[in-house]
Amino acid sequence: MFPSFKFFQVTTDAQILSALRSAENGGVSGADLSERLGISRAAIWARIEELRKLGYDIEASPHLGYRLVNDPDVLHADDLVARLGKAKVIGRDIRVFQETTSTNDVVEKLARDGVKEGVVVFAESQSKGRGRLGRKWISTAGKGLWFSVLLRPDLRPQEATQLTVVAATALWRAIHAETGLSAEVKWPNDILLGGKKVAGILTEMSAELDRVKHLILGIGVDVNQAASEFPPDVRKLATSLRAELGKPVLRAELATAILRELDRDYARVCGGHFSDVADEWEERCTTIGQQVTISIGERRIRGRAESLDDDGALLVRTEHGHLERIIGGDVTLEK
Amino acid sequence: MFPSFKFFQVTTDAQILSALRSAENGGVSGADLSERLGISRAAIWARIEELRKLGYDIEASPHLGYRLVNDPDVLHADDLVARLGKAKVIGRDIRVFQETTSTNDVVEKLARDGVKEGVVVFAESQSKGRGRLGRKWISTAGKGLWFSVLLRPDLRPQEATQLTVVAATALWRAIHAETGLSAEVKWPNDILLGGKKVAGILTEMSAELDRVKHLILGIGVDVNQAASEFPPDVRKLATSLRAELGKPVLRAELATAILRELDRDYARVCGGHFSDVADEWEERCTTIGQQVTISIGERRIRGRAESLDDDGALLVRTEHGHLERIIGGDVTLEK
Repeated sequence: MFPSFKFFQVTTDAQILSALRSAENGGVSGADLSERLGISRAAIWARIEELRKLGYDIEASPHLGYRLVNDPDVLHADDLVARLGKAKVIGRDIRVFQETTSTNDVVEKLARDGVKEGVVVFAESQSKGRGRLGRKWISTAGKGLWFSVLLRPDLRPQEATQLTVVAATALWRAIHAETGLSAEVKWPNDILLGGKKVAGILTEMSAELDRVKHLILGIGVDVNQAASEFPPDVRKLATSLRAELGKPVLRAELATAILRELDRDYARVCGGHFSDVADEWEERCTTIGQQVTISIGERRIRGRAESLDDDGALLVRTEHGHLERIIGGDVTLEK
Repeated sequence: MFPSFKFFQVTTDAQILSALRSAENGGVSGADLSERLGISRAAIWARIEELRKLGYDIEASPHLGYRLVNDPDVLHADDLVARLGKAKVIGRDIRVFQETTSTNDVVEKLARDGVKEGVVVFAESQSKGRGRLGRKWISTAGKGLWFSVLLRPDLRPQEATQLTVVAATALWRAIHAETGLSAEVKWPNDILLGGKKVAGILTEMSAELDRVKHLILGIGVDVNQAASEFPPDVRKLATSLRAELGKPVLRAELATAILRELDRDYARVCGGHFSDVADEWEERCTTIGQQVTISIGERRIRGRAESLDDDGALLVRTEHGHLERIIGGDVTLEK
């Protein structure tokens, strides 16, 4: 069940947290844990101490044993593995950095080192987080989810938009399941709440002309920032789940919900069933049916967004009546 | 004139070789070189000794001074810089490795370190040379040109085929100018002599969905192998310039001829004049007008190759009468 790259102690944390969470009477004895994990009670105690240092509120009492009283809002690779359980591809290897330049950069290096697809890299903060077209992405330390997923799909470069659609759909579903909030999907890569951006997707790939070698889904979600934590000029355009919901969201839960949805839909795409994902996407996407202006470099295209095509490209009926196939660019909705 | 990354001694070699090649009476005195380069006669002598060790046959006589009697068939970065002269973009920074895994890999690392476009990396041999779709490319040490060029064009991923067309055209012209041989261009990335492959192009890119971040042109030319040096199973399919011409070709001259053509046509593409290059390409391309079978993974498309479109894709009129736009795949000519 646990990825083979992980060291013994690391998988132990995951097993302990799993056991504590599934304890029926609310507690597990050290003897029980010792037997189930095949390590000494002293070793169990040492790991419990380490988990406490990470912020896990674990009580120990003589008759109830160890009890997990409260979950801290931290990202701990093993906790994520424990929460996620068995993954087909996405999340079978999870790594968490306290700080990095950009999780896409970290995954790019892993990709070039030949790491298998499905690895997910989280960072508590990014010094050089970026959005599309090299734009800066602000990653407030400890307040959001900033992570990247390595994929090696058997796709041509022009089909890569399919995976941005997969990511947007997974984000919509996970946010809805964890918070009850109904987001809007704005083509191609934004998730909005009340018209403000709450999450974004940056899809980057390494490719030959007719073959994707690897693809990185970079995902950023503003989770627990207070509205006042956004810079004034960003505040009109961006929001967080906490700001919309009025209470904080446990990031580890949201993260594993997103990974689970991604894993499911990636399997659908690999199985040749992208159209199922696209159908769901079109239901969620406020771009479809709208009058839009699309900026691609200097070029402006105005028209009505009609639908997605088989590759995830947006089909726009222009003012001049013909259908344009759009694979990128800045979309402005004309409401 | 010389790229700023180069160390003093390196540019000195380029200047000495330039001076020796342009000497009107066949020689240049040490005093003259010393004055022109602004370094001592002892330093000039030391560099001449180093050049001799690399194989340059440089004679010294009291009244004629230094004379370059014979050029060795080696790749020396400074000699390439000296031969190439002023480059707009491609070749303003040239690096030569004796051995590497793959020059595309070296350039990929440079790209990620933020190196400017135009850098060219040569290797005398590659331990992991590769062709399209991860296929192995044999790089016989010292017998061919194996090099990669870093570009950062303002193109969308689906336009990247343009640069494969540029590379094929440049290869055709340089081979013709240096050897008199008229090659065939086989879409998308092969150069043939008498139906056998003599050179190939591997275009790799790093991209967002709608923007190429950087693109690497990997070029391999079989130059001075004897036919017997190819493995028996390769011999039917591949040849070298020497095998076709009956005499060896000085690789440094061919290399700089290719870089000069590439530099010129890259400027044409960046200036929005790809169609000029495409016109020339269509003249050279034996694929146009032929019955072809194209294999893309499991799929087979049969038809007549009609022309290139604006992005360098091949337009094929299928058996069923409709026009397919092909951006990659294996092409078999049905003669």
